Amino acid sequence: MSPPAKTVTACIVVIGNEILSGRTRDSNIQYLATELGLLGVRVMECRVIPDIEATIVATINEVRARFDYVFTTGGIGPTHDDITADCIAKAFGVGISEHPEAVARMTRHYDDVALFTPARRRMARVPHGGTLVDNPVSVAPGFQMENVFTFAGIPKVAEAMFQSMKHRLVGGDPMLSRTVRTNLPEGIIAEPLGALQLRYEDLDIGSYPAFRNGKPSVSLVLRGVDAARLEVAAAELMATIRTMNGEAEEFTQ
Amino acid sequence: MSPPAKTVTACIVVIGNEILSGRTRDSNIQYLATELGLLGVRVMECRVIPDIEATIVATINEVRARFDYVFTTGGIGPTHDDITADCIAKAFGVGISEHPEAVARMTRHYDDVALFTPARRRMARVPHGGTLVDNPVSVAPGFQMENVFTFAGIPKVAEAMFQSMKHRLVGGDPMLSRTVRTNLPEGIIAEPLGALQLRYEDLDIGSYPAFRNGKPSVSLVLRGVDAARLEVAAAELMATIRTMNGEAEEFTQ
Repeated sequence: MSPPAKTVTACIVVIGNEILSGRTRDSNIQYLATELGLLGVRVMECRVIPDIEATIVATINEVRARFDYVFTTGGIGPTHDDITADCIAKAFGVGISEHPEAVARMTRHYDDVALFTPARRRMARVPHGGTLVDNPVSVAPGFQMENVFTFAGIPKVAEAMFQSMKHRLVGGDPMLSRTVRTNLPEGIIAEPLGALQLRYEDLDIGSYPAFRNGKPSVSLVLRGVDAARLEVAAAELMATIRTMNGEAEEFTQ
Repeated sequence: MSPPAKTVTACIVVIGNEILSGRTRDSNIQYLATELGLLGVRVMECRVIPDIEATIVATINEVRARFDYVFTTGGIGPTHDDITADCIAKAFGVGISEHPEAVARMTRHYDDVALFTPARRRMARVPHGGTLVDNPVSVAPGFQMENVFTFAGIPKVAEAMFQSMKHRLVGGDPMLSRTVRTNLPEGIIAEPLGALQLRYEDLDIGSYPAFRNGKPSVSLVLRGVDAARLEVAAAELMATIRTMNGEAEEFTQ
């Protein structure tokens, strides 16, 4: 990778029909986005795509050119619908075959050779030029091809894979945030909030309404790389809310 | 819309920095995907994108040409970071202004005129040519522009908006599914499962491992439009698993 830029971007690609059918609610996006944020890597886009070769190949080639890092989850298991590794090889225009180190790890793991089935051997296949990503949960590794990291879809495994490789990432300035929660509705706080955003162009100010205990509540989130600026802006926002007879509580995140 | 095709596709576009930062875990994708599936509309892709005009406009224009329906969530509130309506107008190359019916509804709702602030009036703005999508929760409407439906981001509101407009959708054959859960690991069931997929090319057979009560468990999901075929294939799969001394439980979904 080139030396750390101030802004380092990422795209998460969730591969799996089970998310698109509504059967499964994805949690990998939230986990990876949170962890990447702590490392100064900003997730700028996510895609959820089906187990269809042409879609996976085209998506990978589009996003690996547009973002500094790409993380994929899903589709690297032993069954017929696990086609991610082959698609990554195709996207990079390389072959795919068993990685000796992956075979060695899995051979040690399945001490009874009959358990190391042909289906499981498929999980030792890595696109040529790829390096392994360790899997401390269930052994069969993920892999890295240039700026693309391929993880399993099961959250427990995806999370362990991320933890095992995150030292390879070179982040930019970490994004910091402060959250001010208020009982004032968005329609009332909107004008001073917009004015605050104009005065603090270097911050990204978001407004997130929700229902808490049945009552409307708004979280005003200030994000930026300069802790001092965030502190001043948050204080200004709290003072404004109180001037308007609103309640303001701050959370540091 | 043209008469129902056998396969009707959709794309969900989630607009919001709060998902990309990891602050919020999206639930609209799962809700909409499940509901659309029941209507015979298949979600083929989802995107999560930031509150950035150029990204929203380009994404909308790409996906509205590729899919039968597009559903967006997020970014139609009263604050400065709510830019979705303006971006949809830009994507369609039309202007945007207050929709008389939206203004009328909101005027009735905010019986004290002082509460119908300029910020809230922004929520009555609809791209020219758009039709309203009712909001039974908090009044300010979503809207439809051709095949693109724009909903709020708050799940409770997005869900109510979907329910209020779903009769406008023309679906294809509804996707049915049967799920067989087994204690056999994927690496053992993979071969007969792949063979089953080859014999039932009209079905989409997926394998989803998970940990249940700390033990590995695999859900084998058969999806297709023909209930009789699904029944036969599921029975065959259960018989195969029992031949292998595995446990097989069926769930009809």
